[in-house]
Amino acid sequence: MISHETITGILKNYDKENITIGTIGSHSALQILKGARDEGFKTLAICKNNRKFVYERFHSADEIIGVSDYREILDDDFQNKLINKNLILVPHGSLVEYVGAKNIEEKFRVPLSGNRATLEWESDRNKEKKWFKEAGIKMPKEFKSPEEIDRLVIVKFPGARGGRGYFLVDHKVGFFKKIRSRGMEDEDYTIQEYITGTRFYPHYFYSPITGEVELMSMDIRYESNVDGLARTPHWAFKHYAPEPSYTVTGNFPVVIRESLLHKVLEMGDNVVFASKKLFPPGMTGPFCIEAICTDDLKFIAFEVSARIVAGTNLYIEGSPYSQILYNEPMSTGRRIAREIKIAIEKDMLNDVIY
Amino acid sequence: MISHETITGILKNYDKENITIGTIGSHSALQILKGARDEGFKTLAICKNNRKFVYERFHSADEIIGVSDYREILDDDFQNKLINKNLILVPHGSLVEYVGAKNIEEKFRVPLSGNRATLEWESDRNKEKKWFKEAGIKMPKEFKSPEEIDRLVIVKFPGARGGRGYFLVDHKVGFFKKIRSRGMEDEDYTIQEYITGTRFYPHYFYSPITGEVELMSMDIRYESNVDGLARTPHWAFKHYAPEPSYTVTGNFPVVIRESLLHKVLEMGDNVVFASKKLFPPGMTGPFCIEAICTDDLKFIAFEVSARIVAGTNLYIEGSPYSQILYNEPMSTGRRIAREIKIAIEKDMLNDVIY
Amino acid sequence: MISHETITGILKNYDKENITIGTIGSHSALQILKGARDEGFKTLAICKNNRKFVYERFHSADEIIGVSDYREILDDDFQNKLINKNLILVPHGSLVEYVGAKNIEEKFRVPLSGNRATLEWESDRNKEKKWFKEAGIKMPKEFKSPEEIDRLVIVKFPGARGGRGYFLVDHKVGFFKKIRSRGMEDEDYTIQEYITGTRFYPHYFYSPITGEVELMSMDIRYESNVDGLARTPHWAFKHYAPEPSYTVTGNFPVVIRESLLHKVLEMGDNVVFASKKLFPPGMTGPFCIEAICTDDLKFIAFEVSARIVAGTNLYIEGSPYSQILYNEPMSTGRRIAREIKIAIEKDMLNDVIY
Repeated sequence: MISHETITGILKNYDKENITIGTIGSHSALQILKGARDEGFKTLAICKNNRKFVYERFHSADEIIGVSDYREILDDDFQNKLINKNLILVPHGSLVEYVGAKNIEEKFRVPLSGNRATLEWESDRNKEKKWFKEAGIKMPKEFKSPEEIDRLVIVKFPGARGGRGYFLVDHKVGFFKKIRSRGMEDEDYTIQEYITGTRFYPHYFYSPITGEVELMSMDIRYESNVDGLARTPHWAFKHYAPEPSYTVTGNFPVVIRESLLHKVLEMGDNVVFASKKLFPPGMTGPFCIEAICTDDLKFIAFEVSARIVAGTNLYIEGSPYSQILYNEPMSTGRRIAREIKIAIEKDMLNDVIY
Repeated sequence: MISHETITGILKNYDKENITIGTIGSHSALQILKGARDEGFKTLAICKNNRKFVYERFHSADEIIGVSDYREILDDDFQNKLINKNLILVPHGSLVEYVGAKNIEEKFRVPLSGNRATLEWESDRNKEKKWFKEAGIKMPKEFKSPEEIDRLVIVKFPGARGGRGYFLVDHKVGFFKKIRSRGMEDEDYTIQEYITGTRFYPHYFYSPITGEVELMSMDIRYESNVDGLARTPHWAFKHYAPEPSYTVTGNFPVVIRESLLHKVLEMGDNVVFASKKLFPPGMTGPFCIEAICTDDLKFIAFEVSARIVAGTNLYIEGSPYSQILYNEPMSTGRRIAREIKIAIEKDMLNDVIY
Repeated sequence: MISHETITGILKNYDKENITIGTIGSHSALQILKGARDEGFKTLAICKNNRKFVYERFHSADEIIGVSDYREILDDDFQNKLINKNLILVPHGSLVEYVGAKNIEEKFRVPLSGNRATLEWESDRNKEKKWFKEAGIKMPKEFKSPEEIDRLVIVKFPGARGGRGYFLVDHKVGFFKKIRSRGMEDEDYTIQEYITGTRFYPHYFYSPITGEVELMSMDIRYESNVDGLARTPHWAFKHYAPEPSYTVTGNFPVVIRESLLHKVLEMGDNVVFASKKLFPPGMTGPFCIEAICTDDLKFIAFEVSARIVAGTNLYIEGSPYSQILYNEPMSTGRRIAREIKIAIEKDMLNDVIY
């Protein structure tokens, strides 16, 4: 992994009065770029050529660079160009998906907001499990092999692919049939007990400058086709029986019962605390814990996203939670830029950029 | 249809410093009136007598006129009264429903915001299909006759009646039974393949002044009883088997996965482009494309509403999308008034009023 | 019940320039405290010791007092301490749940915002039914005994316990089995016809100063596990058949079809009017009517909450409705504080504090 020393060396030469905040044109880029501009930074979007028009239409960035493949950002020349712009790149799920966690960690020496090591910990399923265990957060029962399936389970595939390919099954025979029909036999998978309850995706922000975990907002995902199937009457499945699929297509706003907030905050605190132990100095900046709340009001967590999540796109002008914390519109994207601004002022950039 | 020349003739005599923006008291009137007031216009609501109190309670308009039947607005005296107030009427779904597209187009010579011809194109099912085809937008398979039903279909009735009477069926026998039990045998109907996925109703605004299509916001509809049935357990349908019905009763806010935005924008652009070809100068102002996103991330569109839709009522202070486009609260209702304001300043009123 | 005279006597000695608004740290306290601060009041949160950190984390109150049991607030010394702070306590569902309606009415002589008698009328099922009847609001059919169950019904238990224990059943045999398995045989219960439709929880505010009922916002509840079950495919219930449960875990924002607003306003007006007749001077301040909208657009009401409801937590910066009524961010929590502020200015505190 590119060492913190390498990055601090590059940052040392940055013109701190002329930082540009940039990101890849997808996922939560509109929010990140608006937030950066609201905090007074110059902004840059790196877009697939055929998606540039989206960011132009929203007047999103001071500069928009087109690429034909996102991996072009790994080219030495490209990286130097970014560094010459005093660029800090904000990573998000699409960056990880299109460029790869390993490539970013090892080949991309442009300064990133947040701890570079986090990408590895969140994208490696075993590390993620170790992390949750260290944090004392309950996860669904996992089945090591399809042979062990003895209840309703959900089969998931790794990576930030937006739920593509996930399926439900309640017996090993169905498992093999379904995984073949999806052409996923050679993929890694995780077999998790299917938990029924209400989903909550709380969006946190951990600031190493203040030492505090802030609850910024929360959302739930809007998934195709499962959220459409839910509205289809039972009798209709006599001749028409599509399997539920879990492709993320959007997000809904939600607030949680206030008497559950302490559990939500404790989960966030524990995940940060565990990260400091597992990969010091640990996770910094935005993160999300994907969780289910059962009807006895317990939380079971499925996943941690140790970077901004797309559900924050709902809250461009702030959420019910951030509106209590801040006396101004504060999205997670803007909070990232604010952190960089404060770090520059306090000469603590090395604590938030990796 | 009342010609553009007639309207421009009437507009010529309007006192441009004293324009009143008015609408019918229903559908999205609260939003339209607030938006008009925020842009500095005088406001007028025309309400059924027994609904006046709603608009009074919200202090919605400078003047509220009561009528016992909305078709009273077609009376010559009534029209003259409106014209003497320098009134521009903002059409919406309830206007079309209660007064009739044909009546408005042919008998109502009060200036309307947006192209008058659009009402006909959106309320005639065959024209709408031609429009989508021209725009290259995929629609669900349609069955010409009940005899052809070979899968799960939804049967719809024309007009902006808020989904009333729609039903699902998977065989011609059920079709005839259900249409009779609803007393709808003599109605026009459309038989569409039932598509499962996530619904998105993006709200666009096309400005002929800037030449740009803006994505203002999006929603999904909250329908009775189908959204209640979805929460009823399967076993309960043993003795209790109500058919799903699709009466629109409200709206939920939603954002779409950012990597799908280019498709949403392209659909909007294509619909505008096609309208210019089919009924020049084409559609202007707010419109909505009702679409489903399948789990392979393709959009299938059901309907175009070529006027403000009620889902915009969620965004009185702006949506995550309009908040990026504008540095101030910008609802679709306010955007309509803003367009009129800009048109007055630029002496382009004849481009946005028909 | 502590008489209005007792309270007005205590209020007389309050320093009106130094009122503190306080509440119990749960339910809607974050909103109430922010609203009070926005209106210029000092703020106090009374929290369970292990929940203090939540309110500290959100920088919610000028003072946070820890207790080990909420009933400590009934202690004479504690009450005197609050009175010496010129405290007005805002009651909410958790106050009623943890301290008890009867205890508050009879033993807690700290001034409350809103009519103290209301707590009894909303928490006693029979009084609530009388209230709705007086207001002319339709309720679901009720079954006096399990023997009478002849359709799908929902069985509910009294009190503000967030839906815990509620179940569906369609026959008396199932009723006895289910109530036993929940250990609820000795509890009071209500057997209500199960109504299918869309839920709406409109949030009202009645001001005795202006004499007007304001529609502030509306929400729907997010309940575990029923909202999770809705997304589970039918075939999965072959071996896995959990009963739906209705524990409230959060809230979603919603707007209602504008042509239904007159019915929503009329319900609110009628409930206030009836309260004046049943327990003069009647209900004041925030309240909510939990209702279902059927597919023929009729409302059937389940419950009235005659105090702030947690669904208002969505609207810290105002809702689409309050944004029309006010030219500033106006949550229900802030509206409560605004009412106290206006009452102080107009010397009408005795009309809003009981």
